[in-house]
Amino acid sequence: MPSGEERNYDGRTLADTGGKVRLFVAGALSAAAGIVPNPSQAHYLLQVMGAKDGDRVRLFNGRDGEWAARLAQTTWQSCTLICETKMAVQKEVPDLWLAFAPVKRTPAGTWIQKATELGVRVLQPVITQRTVVRRMNIEHMRANAIEAAEQSGRLSVPDVRAPTDLASLLTAWPARRRMIFCDEAGEAPPIAQALGEIKAGRGGWGVLTGPEGGFAPQEREAIRKHSFVVPVSLGPRIMPADTAALAALGIWQALCGDWR
Amino acid sequence: MPSGEERNYDGRTLADTGGKVRLFVAGALSAAAGIVPNPSQAHYLLQVMGAKDGDRVRLFNGRDGEWAARLAQTTWQSCTLICETKMAVQKEVPDLWLAFAPVKRTPAGTWIQKATELGVRVLQPVITQRTVVRRMNIEHMRANAIEAAEQSGRLSVPDVRAPTDLASLLTAWPARRRMIFCDEAGEAPPIAQALGEIKAGRGGWGVLTGPEGGFAPQEREAIRKHSFVVPVSLGPRIMPADTAALAALGIWQALCGDWR
Repeated sequence: MPSGEERNYDGRTLADTGGKVRLFVAGALSAAAGIVPNPSQAHYLLQVMGAKDGDRVRLFNGRDGEWAARLAQTTWQSCTLICETKMAVQKEVPDLWLAFAPVKRTPAGTWIQKATELGVRVLQPVITQRTVVRRMNIEHMRANAIEAAEQSGRLSVPDVRAPTDLASLLTAWPARRRMIFCDEAGEAPPIAQALGEIKAGRGGWGVLTGPEGGFAPQEREAIRKHSFVVPVSLGPRIMPADTAALAALGIWQALCGDWR
Repeated sequence: MPSGEERNYDGRTLADTGGKVRLFVAGALSAAAGIVPNPSQAHYLLQVMGAKDGDRVRLFNGRDGEWAARLAQTTWQSCTLICETKMAVQKEVPDLWLAFAPVKRTPAGTWIQKATELGVRVLQPVITQRTVVRRMNIEHMRANAIEAAEQSGRLSVPDVRAPTDLASLLTAWPARRRMIFCDEAGEAPPIAQALGEIKAGRGGWGVLTGPEGGFAPQEREAIRKHSFVVPVSLGPRIMPADTAALAALGIWQALCGDWR
């Protein structure tokens, strides 16, 4: 569901979409189950898309796969979505996290959107010494994640976690989970080589990127002393953190994830 | 130079930057050469950054490497930049083009910025059947390219070309240049495999991405019949064109470009 879309500028009805509008819902999905959309979903279906009884949507909840559902009991402000056919079995994205220091030039919602599209499972904002952006609207970021999951055909929504500081991130990081450290200092091996040298582990992966000014020297040291850290370089030019994060996620998916 | 920055909100002087502000200039760079900045650069240096005689910047022009230069003859509205020391020899980015259909959700300037950071040499907007965004400000896009080149440490600015239509793009495309076709239809081999199977050619590379609704079936057919086209898949989820383009550029740099 395109969040915040108050007006349907394209003038398309729900029927025009071919039943392809996807909604993330909380309730259990099974044959003939009735799901009551939340108020903003109901507003979107009824007021924005002018949906009528019998129109179709797709539903997913992160557990029960994807279902085609039919609108029923439609009034001007409420409806029930009746599950009809299971269209896909539940499938998780690869076990890839993104821990990122937010940056001024890119809204947090854009990070969330792009990382969700790139198949990230957990999104962890990190506050570092040089992080300028310290206020984040986590509820808004979670809404961005749901919207991006709905539109990218994912069957799950990434877990957007509350911000943490770098020391806590490193302490809490699971020992068997590899942390790809985009090291702007440039002494690290090239990313494809670094990923190629590591045998597929069973502990999953994560990518860590820093703020505008990079990590402070003592932060770099603290990161690099952990054995789960895989420092990588992303070439000879200066790569802003957001571009570096997206490139690293894509490269990981192509070499180690489900783009293979 | 951060374009459009009228006020120096950080309150830093040019001296505070450690002489690291980079400016793209037109004139030839050599020892003791004097460069007159253009009016917007002069405004940035003098009014925004409060530069004084003796302050330092870096200059590049896409031909003569990077030079440290010193401000001289500084008045309230003009100055001369005197080349002092050559800091880097001229180096080109890898021979990678991006041909992209603009999309509504991402401003053209953001495409240009990210692709410049990812080391693209030529940026070619393409109008396809389903392209909704048909008006582009090429001069503004060129300014975005200069700004991103200045900030990413590049020694050249990518060539932002005037929009073309898909048929003209395919006709004019050099026969020996590989075109990575991000094919949303999903029948193509995974990108890492497709790139791995191709011997390094001498004709360079390009990435082609489509508009919101993808390429029309007859467009896909027209693209795929060219022998320079390398169809690739970017995984099982629906990838919006802008995210797909950035991922493909990063993957190419990691596997075939100068991130190796």
